[in-house]
Amino acid sequence: MSNRVKALFFDVFGTVVDWRNSIAEEIGQVAKNNGVSIDCHEFADKWRSLYQPAMAPIRDGSRGYTRLDILHRENLDEILSGFGLGDLDESERDSLNRAWHRLAGWPDASKGLHRLKSRFIIAPMSNGNVSLMVDMAKHSDLPWDTVLGAEPARQYKPHPQTYLTGADWLDLDPGECMMVAAHNGDLVAAAELGLKTAFILRPTEHGPGQTTDLKAEAEFDYVCADFLELADKLGCP
Amino acid sequence: MSNRVKALFFDVFGTVVDWRNSIAEEIGQVAKNNGVSIDCHEFADKWRSLYQPAMAPIRDGSRGYTRLDILHRENLDEILSGFGLGDLDESERDSLNRAWHRLAGWPDASKGLHRLKSRFIIAPMSNGNVSLMVDMAKHSDLPWDTVLGAEPARQYKPHPQTYLTGADWLDLDPGECMMVAAHNGDLVAAAELGLKTAFILRPTEHGPGQTTDLKAEAEFDYVCADFLELADKLGCP
Repeated sequence: MSNRVKALFFDVFGTVVDWRNSIAEEIGQVAKNNGVSIDCHEFADKWRSLYQPAMAPIRDGSRGYTRLDILHRENLDEILSGFGLGDLDESERDSLNRAWHRLAGWPDASKGLHRLKSRFIIAPMSNGNVSLMVDMAKHSDLPWDTVLGAEPARQYKPHPQTYLTGADWLDLDPGECMMVAAHNGDLVAAAELGLKTAFILRPTEHGPGQTTDLKAEAEFDYVCADFLELADKLGCP
Repeated sequence: MSNRVKALFFDVFGTVVDWRNSIAEEIGQVAKNNGVSIDCHEFADKWRSLYQPAMAPIRDGSRGYTRLDILHRENLDEILSGFGLGDLDESERDSLNRAWHRLAGWPDASKGLHRLKSRFIIAPMSNGNVSLMVDMAKHSDLPWDTVLGAEPARQYKPHPQTYLTGADWLDLDPGECMMVAAHNGDLVAAAELGLKTAFILRPTEHGPGQTTDLKAEAEFDYVCADFLELADKLGCP
């Protein structure tokens, strides 16, 4: 089966990078600089909790495509005062918002992607916008062949348009593409369109008390502990 | 000035890769396999001569965006019989059409891009479509950070939309981007939008008798013999 697959599409937030600890670290520094004491992980979770609701009106067509940097910033502006950081100025807010451009990869991410790239086209299939993906790739050594995902498709996953635009741009059938993700919902949406699927277990994406996506909940083509195991199974040196 | 530039946009056909000799080599093999004798460089020049006319109706809006692979194929179908190759079957035509995905870089291209990537975002700003760029990059070790150009913008250079979509996707002002090309017209179009410019001399792109683009014909920010000189001038290790 893997002989037919030519491209691997990666979910990024949670699958490739550890957004929660990276965001917690950055807000911790900002809070310290401003003499404010906060629970850094609570801040990261709160910010992230507004992510799906912000994309909903775009998915259902009631708001035009708006890149994730802008949604992140709207959500940031909404939560800062609740954490005693309502006084942050424009420059501090912009810098903090770009923390998403500087997320750190899971320990296996860069090495695994380099191996997978030897046999496959590899591309992010993320809801993050292109500049976010490009900056993050340079920051965390993620050797993408190109950036696919929400901005090219002008629509957010799990809308079919996001995955299908990626396959179309590579001139591939959906069945020649494999979605790699730590989230059951993302993989189920991709599988419904004919993409192959690989579930990667990231049991601490949401911290030590994570309750979701602790196992594959459907019949995916591969289930792996990390990208190195996926590279092994796909025969990548 | 180069301190403000964050991204380098590259013209590809002629600037990064030697399309003429690569196409000549591939058609030579096809002709040999079919027992036909042809002038391989004449074939390459003829095929390429239909490139600009094919994009014209898309630029002026009389035809919707159609990716270059399809235009290349239409042009190929038009010229084959004139070279005694009208009997090529679908599979042979498709394979030959993908010769554009396998173009070889100029001798300095890969090494120069690797150096330039150390300090800048590097991306093709080509009229070639995304799969063509991705395949070519893997074939000729062109380490793009992402693919920009005609397909993302759904419009062909030198239409402003092509350059401006690239800058927008990187969340950069035009003045933070530098167009790198071996063609005066491409650079003049980019400069009119506020992009910085670098002219690369490729005096044999069209063969030994080349008459165009033998020198910079406007005030560009840099004029270089190749990508290594550009890397030197931009301080890339």
